[in-house]
Amino acid sequence: MSFFSFELDPALAADPVFDLHQHGKMAIAATVPLSSRDDLSLAYTPGVARVCEAIADNPDLAADYTWTGNAVAVVTDGSAVLGLGNIGPRAAMPVMEGKAVLFKQFGGVDAVPVCLDTQDTEALIAIVTALAPSFGGINLEDISAPRCFEIERRLDAALDIPVFHDDQHGTAVVVLAALRNATKLLGRRLADLRVVISGAGAAGVAITRMLIAAGVTGANVIVCDSRGILYTEREGLNPSKAELAAATNYSGRTGGIREALIGADVLIGVSGGLIDEAALAGMAPGGIIFALANPTPEVPPHIAARYAAVVATGRSDFPNQINNVLAFPGIFRGALDARATTITEGMKVAAAKAIAEVVADDLRADAIVPSALDPRVAPAVAQAVARAAERDGVARMTVAPAVPDERASVTA
Amino acid sequence: MSFFSFELDPALAADPVFDLHQHGKMAIAATVPLSSRDDLSLAYTPGVARVCEAIADNPDLAADYTWTGNAVAVVTDGSAVLGLGNIGPRAAMPVMEGKAVLFKQFGGVDAVPVCLDTQDTEALIAIVTALAPSFGGINLEDISAPRCFEIERRLDAALDIPVFHDDQHGTAVVVLAALRNATKLLGRRLADLRVVISGAGAAGVAITRMLIAAGVTGANVIVCDSRGILYTEREGLNPSKAELAAATNYSGRTGGIREALIGADVLIGVSGGLIDEAALAGMAPGGIIFALANPTPEVPPHIAARYAAVVATGRSDFPNQINNVLAFPGIFRGALDARATTITEGMKVAAAKAIAEVVADDLRADAIVPSALDPRVAPAVAQAVARAAERDGVARMTVAPAVPDERASVTA
Repeated sequence: MSFFSFELDPALAADPVFDLHQHGKMAIAATVPLSSRDDLSLAYTPGVARVCEAIADNPDLAADYTWTGNAVAVVTDGSAVLGLGNIGPRAAMPVMEGKAVLFKQFGGVDAVPVCLDTQDTEALIAIVTALAPSFGGINLEDISAPRCFEIERRLDAALDIPVFHDDQHGTAVVVLAALRNATKLLGRRLADLRVVISGAGAAGVAITRMLIAAGVTGANVIVCDSRGILYTEREGLNPSKAELAAATNYSGRTGGIREALIGADVLIGVSGGLIDEAALAGMAPGGIIFALANPTPEVPPHIAARYAAVVATGRSDFPNQINNVLAFPGIFRGALDARATTITEGMKVAAAKAIAEVVADDLRADAIVPSALDPRVAPAVAQAVARAAERDGVARMTVAPAVPDERASVTA
Repeated sequence: MSFFSFELDPALAADPVFDLHQHGKMAIAATVPLSSRDDLSLAYTPGVARVCEAIADNPDLAADYTWTGNAVAVVTDGSAVLGLGNIGPRAAMPVMEGKAVLFKQFGGVDAVPVCLDTQDTEALIAIVTALAPSFGGINLEDISAPRCFEIERRLDAALDIPVFHDDQHGTAVVVLAALRNATKLLGRRLADLRVVISGAGAAGVAITRMLIAAGVTGANVIVCDSRGILYTEREGLNPSKAELAAATNYSGRTGGIREALIGADVLIGVSGGLIDEAALAGMAPGGIIFALANPTPEVPPHIAARYAAVVATGRSDFPNQINNVLAFPGIFRGALDARATTITEGMKVAAAKAIAEVVADDLRADAIVPSALDPRVAPAVAQAVARAAERDGVARMTVAPAVPDERASVTA
């Protein structure tokens, strides 16, 4: 048995982040009265039995008469947390709680952090499948590549609720939104851009797929991992990297990030690996650099600005913060409102467009995406996503016009 | 794919219980500010990473710097929900939500309903084990006997947080509290009582064990199931019933409930099966009847009153409601405050004493237990349980004097 230390290291105790995190960042709140005998007889026995029986007769009623219609599990195994790596389920909890409160704050979604003490792919799939009746959606988070691809694919196939790996698709949606606006600002077209993606993990794979689906020409894309450029003949590629290599780099370029960047219009860094200034010098002038590693961008923004007309990072203390919080609250709000059975490519593209359009009338090189705090974003994304769900035939409900609703943002 | 009906049966729509249950009974609330860029940089990236790293270095810090120190999973497989039986995980959710909001209302505990889509014992154990890092305690609920015994025993052995099957121990704790006060009121002693327990499921097993541990003489106890009296020679007993038979009924009485009740001082019904008035006529005069089946007691209270001096039921609309809500919020509040690694027999007995003592100075035949709404109960139970945890050597923290604390009862 382990005993608690009760004492935080004094160096940590002086950090305000620990003060804020005392007792965590979230709580459960009752939404019904519980102060009289009559209250209890409705919310609990004997009244509750009638609701149970109605759901037993028609399981679809669960989304109306329990909180599951608005509840999302934020599921991790702690295998790839932020840039910290495989720190396990306990140490991942602060991130999952943070995600959960952002879900509430921006999307009115009741998100529950679920940190699982296993990193076995089959076990994870079985556990999340068993958990599914308790939720209206599953947000996978900080699960390492390439396991994350199979886990998401199989859960999405098995479950009739949305399954969304945010590190893949949330990032890809916001990158696409930012790239659309940057391209528009520069008077360019997606189809003409030569794009280098540095990083072939969860985010790199999803960004590559999404950009190609949105109109970037696969032939003009080059993806690098820590060993350099992906090309079809490269030995030892795992299936997801082999798929990327086949869909990109038609000229079969080889080498490292320096060779990849020669003549590139766009660099998207999602690797965590630093990129030398010398490599940037090979880029075509007047381009775009998104250096998204957190907390240390692949390229410091002031260096990136020497080689590109538009620069974005993942950090809140520089302009153009590309952060998933622009995407996931609205995407799940829209998917839950539509009672979508899955999240389609069309729903993701609609989300990216909606994010981009929030600032479309006032585009500037230092404002290609809305602020993470912009209250217009999540409702716009939610509405676009719900409509796309209807168009794609995965909605079980016609969407009410106003989102988010009165459930949004309970702050205790 | 199933489509939602959107329309409730009009007969149900007129029932106020469905109106109350729209969108469920609970929500997530953030407990930290999230409205400025600085707020986000503390609660989420980049600040959160420092908390993750501290927990990775010392996992014990998770209980202090995440919500897990105050969070309990209310876990069911939907196999034995109220008196409704095996209605499955979706239909069980309204009960689990009700439990969760009672946890908050009375114990200040953040409880999350987890309804699992499997009834396989090994799978349930594996899933709850994997979920454990996300919670400070596990409340098992409405899992059928005899599976519930093995599931609880193995989880308790595997995990270093409290595991508590409420249908067993919550019920047993409140029954013991009520029986102590009824016995005191009647000027009797537990050791002298002849006790019949009708029902050998989760509650019957736990009540029998707990009463014997508390001083009732095993020789004087008779347990009945749907086939009649348990006795050691009876064929086809499962292991938990065989154990009960060995610990009770030393005279080897056989027959049905009628034979069991001859000369009995106490009848405790936890079976759901009705008991004929004729059978009650054999009881010793001036005794005790607890008819706890819900919503239909084994004996109507006005009939029971003809044969017993003290009568209790599980219903809120009769005097002496024996309801688990008197126990579980305070038991978990105390266990969490002490950071107990398990819930010992001593902690349960302490809880029963604390419940009984709330009304000890004003005992009446129609007030042997406090009201389910009595705000004195949970803090008294919590303090008694935390102190018992210290005495029993399972506490990881010395208990602060005041419980519940400021986290109690957020009602949105």
